[in-house]
Parts: sequence; structure tokens; C-alpha cells
Amino acid sequence: MELTSLPAIIAILFAAIGGRLLSQKINQPEVLGELIFGMIIGQFIVLSPSAKEPVSLLADIGIFILLFSIGLDLNLERFEKLLFPAGMVAAGGVILPFLFGYFIAISFGFSQTVAFFLATSLVATSVGVSGSILQEAGKLNTRVGTLIMDSAILDDVVAVTMVTITLSFARTHMMPLKDVFFIILFSVIFFVVSLTLGVRALKGFSERIQISDENLILGTLLMLISFALIAEKIGLAGIIGGFVAGLIIGQTRFSQILASPISSIGNGFFIPIFFVTVGMKFDLGGFTPIGLFAIIFIILAVAGKIIGSGLGAKLFDFNNQESFVTGVAMVPRAGVELVLVNSGLEHNLIGQDIASAILVMVIVSTLITPPLLWQALRSSEEIR
Amino acid sequence: MELTSLPAIIAILFAAIGGRLLSQKINQPEVLGELIFGMIIGQFIVLSPSAKEPVSLLADIGIFILLFSIGLDLNLERFEKLLFPAGMVAAGGVILPFLFGYFIAISFGFSQTVAFFLATSLVATSVGVSGSILQEAGKLNTRVGTLIMDSAILDDVVAVTMVTITLSFARTHMMPLKDVFFIILFSVIFFVVSLTLGVRALKGFSERIQISDENLILGTLLMLISFALIAEKIGLAGIIGGFVAGLIIGQTRFSQILASPISSIGNGFFIPIFFVTVGMKFDLGGFTPIGLFAIIFIILAVAGKIIGSGLGAKLFDFNNQESFVTGVAMVPRAGVELVLVNSGLEHNLIGQDIASAILVMVIVSTLITPPLLWQALRSSEEIR
Repeated sequence: MELTSLPAIIAILFAAIGGRLLSQKINQPEVLGELIFGMIIGQFIVLSPSAKEPVSLLADIGIFILLFSIGLDLNLERFEKLLFPAGMVAAGGVILPFLFGYFIAISFGFSQTVAFFLATSLVATSVGVSGSILQEAGKLNTRVGTLIMDSAILDDVVAVTMVTITLSFARTHMMPLKDVFFIILFSVIFFVVSLTLGVRALKGFSERIQISDENLILGTLLMLISFALIAEKIGLAGIIGGFVAGLIIGQTRFSQILASPISSIGNGFFIPIFFVTVGMKFDLGGFTPIGLFAIIFIILAVAGKIIGSGLGAKLFDFNNQESFVTGVAMVPRAGVELVLVNSGLEHNLIGQDIASAILVMVIVSTLITPPLLWQALRSSEEIR
Repeated sequence: MELTSLPAIIAILFAAIGGRLLSQKINQPEVLGELIFGMIIGQFIVLSPSAKEPVSLLADIGIFILLFSIGLDLNLERFEKLLFPAGMVAAGGVILPFLFGYFIAISFGFSQTVAFFLATSLVATSVGVSGSILQEAGKLNTRVGTLIMDSAILDDVVAVTMVTITLSFARTHMMPLKDVFFIILFSVIFFVVSLTLGVRALKGFSERIQISDENLILGTLLMLISFALIAEKIGLAGIIGGFVAGLIIGQTRFSQILASPISSIGNGFFIPIFFVTVGMKFDLGGFTPIGLFAIIFIILAVAGKIIGSGLGAKLFDFNNQESFVTGVAMVPRAGVELVLVNSGLEHNLIGQDIASAILVMVIVSTLITPPLLWQALRSSEEIR
């Protein structure tokens, strides 16, 4: 069935609500249900040509807001204190899955670009799932709980950067070296200027100005979309612009005012549109032929995090059970890798088969974490 | 300069912020600055073909949310008490401007359809402007203040209905009578079912259900877009669907939870996009030839409300000064008639010249109200 803009948005929002209800029923994060319902309606619904651009614009704004929120939540000062152990857990959970993903992809005969994509998709961790389970188990404020949350955030930062590199790399593959040089130059300037002058300017501005909440929201959305566009123009991924905008505003007093309305706008409209439309890209016909690869890929996705992150924790004086819990908590994926899938498909860097394999990996990794983590926490009562 | 989606949205949000700052400086409602800045950027910016659909979708959602908010604010029970005097003020302020508009348009040689459009554009009142001035003057909770606010809301209801009728009328002009009959039948069913079964079902539902704020927002946006689409499918204007959705939810306990986030989403993003893009439709070249007509049209727009609404108040035992204040307070337009302009242009029912005349009328009527009302309030100190 081919749908124009308004009916398509209605179908997508409907799928989002259905997905969230399913998630509640089976005690899973919202994104999981949204993806699954997206996969289901994707089998019946096609966007009409005139609806494609509007719907993908809404989904894009959704990703920008998602990354903006991650940036907004990040307290740079608190971060520095826990940098080393969290850094080690994140590093282990990034490097091992990446290597696993890369080599299994190469050994199955995929191209360099696709191998890079698959490897990068294994890097991120979704904070939400593990966080809510730790909270339910009363372990969020233990030493392990803090380590897990901080590592997961670090992981997200690393993942966003790697997604950006992978996307730039794939796009600049056949660019003259001079252009690649300029992209790197502009990127460095963008980051450095944003995080020094940008933060300082906005901090000063936020203390001097009287602004109504609605105007602040409008200004914030203007800033985050502008940063996304700037990032795209200099060859980075748009999401990195949204992330940096969040990071800057997160250092000002505005961050408390913005947290709730931005979450309303994001989670109440744009972000579910993103997740459902990503789910809609699942293609059963494309997935089946690479089923065997997908199974091994998923096993490595799980093993890579448990071993890699677990070893990272072990190095910093955590015992075996604590390290295992840390590793398990880092397994779920449901964030940045979906951005990767989306951009990869949009720029024809990966096919429907690879996209579908990554989608199934996201769903399986998210589904198995709660029972696994619950079990691990129960068998290690001495965690404080 | 031709802009694609993201740059166009950035330009529009930028214009909205500029317009709001201007409005603050000159003590005017936000919409005025947004319209003016829209008119300015409209002279330089053209949307690329691929950007038209996404931008107009965002603007459409903006109108739906705007009308939804009006419906949400409406307390049906309180309404019945003040029905008669407020009804008279509204009726006077609807009938006289409508007749003025219709006959001046006909006498200038415009077609029946265009005359209807111009007349309908004079019907609505923008509550916001007068409300904020009454509040500043400490007269909002006087008898006159209450009368004005209630009449303005009634006015909006009448205006929404008339806009719907005008749009349906214009569109069904050459329809077989059978189709017109079905539109009316469906409309009646839609209204009656929504406002009886709909309200009752949602009231029951709202008392039984536990729902997170974000899911409630998502569900609300789904409902308002669905209602807009249903309204369009049965031949009504989409806005009426948004309005009815607001009316229904306004009768439940959800209305308090939703007021703030819906205002964030609406006023922080979608609604300013609507106002700026309406302003962008102003065409100086189209306006100049009908300049003389526009001047008379604007004078009648102001006089029609002062005389019509003033007489309405006079009939219900308000003195001359109170009636004059009431009339002046009803002068500003900045809401539903912009929807009319937008739909009229979209369906080729009016040209750029008529649209521009209405836009200038909106701006002038809104600009002259604050000084006029301020003066009228000061010269009648006995208002309590």
C-alpha cells in the first residue's frame, strides 16, 4: 500500500505506540518495540514518492535530537574523574567487537567498506536498557553501576566518532587527498571552536539573557539543526553536529530547562519516527540469504562485548563476577548503529541485506540482555 | 536563492526568532514579528522543489497544533454560562465585518468566491493580543475582560466553522449536489460522534489508564493528525479536525498534562514555521495594484469589529466606554484567517494579490490595537 505524507506519518506513529505497548508488556526498552513494529509495517507499507522526503526529514530531525540529548546529558567535569576505568571498559568493548565484526565480514567475502560498516555497528552500547535494569535491581549507584553507566556514555561518544569516520571514509573513498585533508581540517576546527569558544560564548550568553522557555526551545532546535547542517557541509555526519550542539548547551544553565521539553519533542514525536522508519527498512528477502553470516555476527556481537568490556573492568580491580556483569550490561545496541544503517542505505554504501543483518543484531542483543543481566546480578549478591 | 529542506528550515526558524525579538521590542504579539520577518525573507528565498512538500508538511502540522490548542483551552461547561452576552458580541463582530468585507469586495468587481474569502478573513479575532494587554492593564478579570476573552474564543469557533464552510464551498462549487450532501452528512456525523461518543470514550479511558507523559504526547499527536486527515477526507478543512481533537482531549484530565508540552512542541517549532511561511507568501508586486482596495478593506476591518462587537456589548447592559473597549479588543486578527490564506493559495482559490491584502490587514489590525486599546482603557478608569 502506497501512502502519502500524512497517512504515512499516522501509520508510523501508530506503529510507534503499538511498539511501545509491546515493549512494556515484555519489559523491554521502547526502541525495541518500535523497531519490531517498524519491521512489520514495512512489509505492507511503501512511502509514495512525495512522502519520502518529508518523512525522512522528520526522521533526520529525530536522530539529531537523539544525539543532542546524549550530548546534553554528558557532564564533562564528572567525566574526567572516572576517565580511566570507564575508558578501559569502553575501549575493550569497542576494540574487540570491532575486530570480531571486521574479520568475520572479510572472511565471509564482504568488501572493505561493508566490513567497516559491520564492525562499526558493533561498537555502540545502548545505555537505556542496562540502566533501567540496574535501577530495578537497586544496583545503579554501586561501584559497578557507576562504572557501567559511564562506560556506556563513553562508548556512545566513541561510537558517534567512529560512525562519523566510517561514513566520511566511505564517502571520501574516491575523493582526492586534498579534499580529505580539508575535511579533517574543518572537523578539527569545528570541534575545537565549538567546545572552547562555543561553550564559553553560550555560557556567558546564558547568564546574561532573559529568555522565555518557548523561545529557548526554538533557539535550541535552530542551533541543533544548524550544527547538523554545518557538520554535513564539512563532510562529517549530521548527527555529530547535533551531538556537539547538545554538548555545548549541556554546559550551560539552559540544560535543566531544556531536558524535559526536548525529551517531549524528541520522544513524543521525532525520535519514534526515526526508529520506526529504520525498522521499515528491514527486508526479509534480503536477509534470508545471509542468515548464516547473521547468526555468527550476532554471537560475536554478544561475545565481543562480554569479553572485551569484562576484561577492561578486570584490569581495574573488579572481581570476576563484577566484570562479567559489566560485560553483559554493555551488550545491548539500539542507538548509533541505527543511524549508521540509515545513512549507509541512504548513500548506497550498504545493501538491504547488510542493513537487515544489523537490525536483527540490534534486536537480538537488546532482547537477550535483560534475562542475562538479571541472572548475572542475582548470582553475585555481593555487588555493592 | 533556492534552498533545500534543512537550510530552508534553518532560515525559517531564524526568521521566527528575529520576528519574536522584534515583537518583544515593539511590545507586539510574537506572530506579528514572525509574519513580518516571513514577508522579508520571502523576498529573497525560494524553496527548492524537493523542499516544498517537507516544509509545508511542518507548517500544516503547525496549524493543526494551533487549532488543537484553541480546542484544548475551551472549557465547554464554563462556556454555557456566558453564552448570551459573549454570543452577542461575537455575533456582532462576525456579521458586520463579514458584510463589510463581502460588499466592498463585490463593489470592487471581485468574484463571488473571492468576496467570500475576503469577508471570511475579517471574522476571526486573535485572543492573544487583547488578552495580554488586558492582563498588563490589570483588567483581565473584570466583567469586560471576561466578556472579551469569552467572545474572542466564541469568535474563533465561529471563524473556524466559517473558514471550513468557505473552503468547502469554494471546493464543492462545481460538485454534483449529491457529493455536497454527503459532505454535510459526514461532517455532522463526525462532529456529533466526536463530541458525544468521542468525549465519553476518552474520558473513561483517561480515568482508567496509566500512561507516561511521552506516550501521551505521542498518542495526542497521532490523534490530532488523524483527525485532521479524517476531516480532510470528508471534505472539511484539516484544521477543524485538529480543533475537534483538542476539544475532545480538553474535556479529560489529560488537558492539564498536555498544555505545557504541546505548547513547547507547537510554539517551539511547528507553529512559528507556519506563521513565517505564511508571511513568505506576501507578494509586493501582487499587492501594489490593489492598494486602494486594501486600504478601504483594512479600514472596514477595524470599523466592523468596533461597531459590530461594541453594539453587541451595548445590548447587554454595558455602558458606552465598556462597549467601545470591547469593540477595540476584538480588532486584531492573527489566527484562523492565515489558515484561510494558506489553504486558499494552495487550492488556487485566491491569488497572490488577495492573499497579500489579507496579510497586510492582519498586520495593520494587530499593530494598531495595542495603542488604541491602551488609550480606551485609560480613558475609562471605572472599568472593574
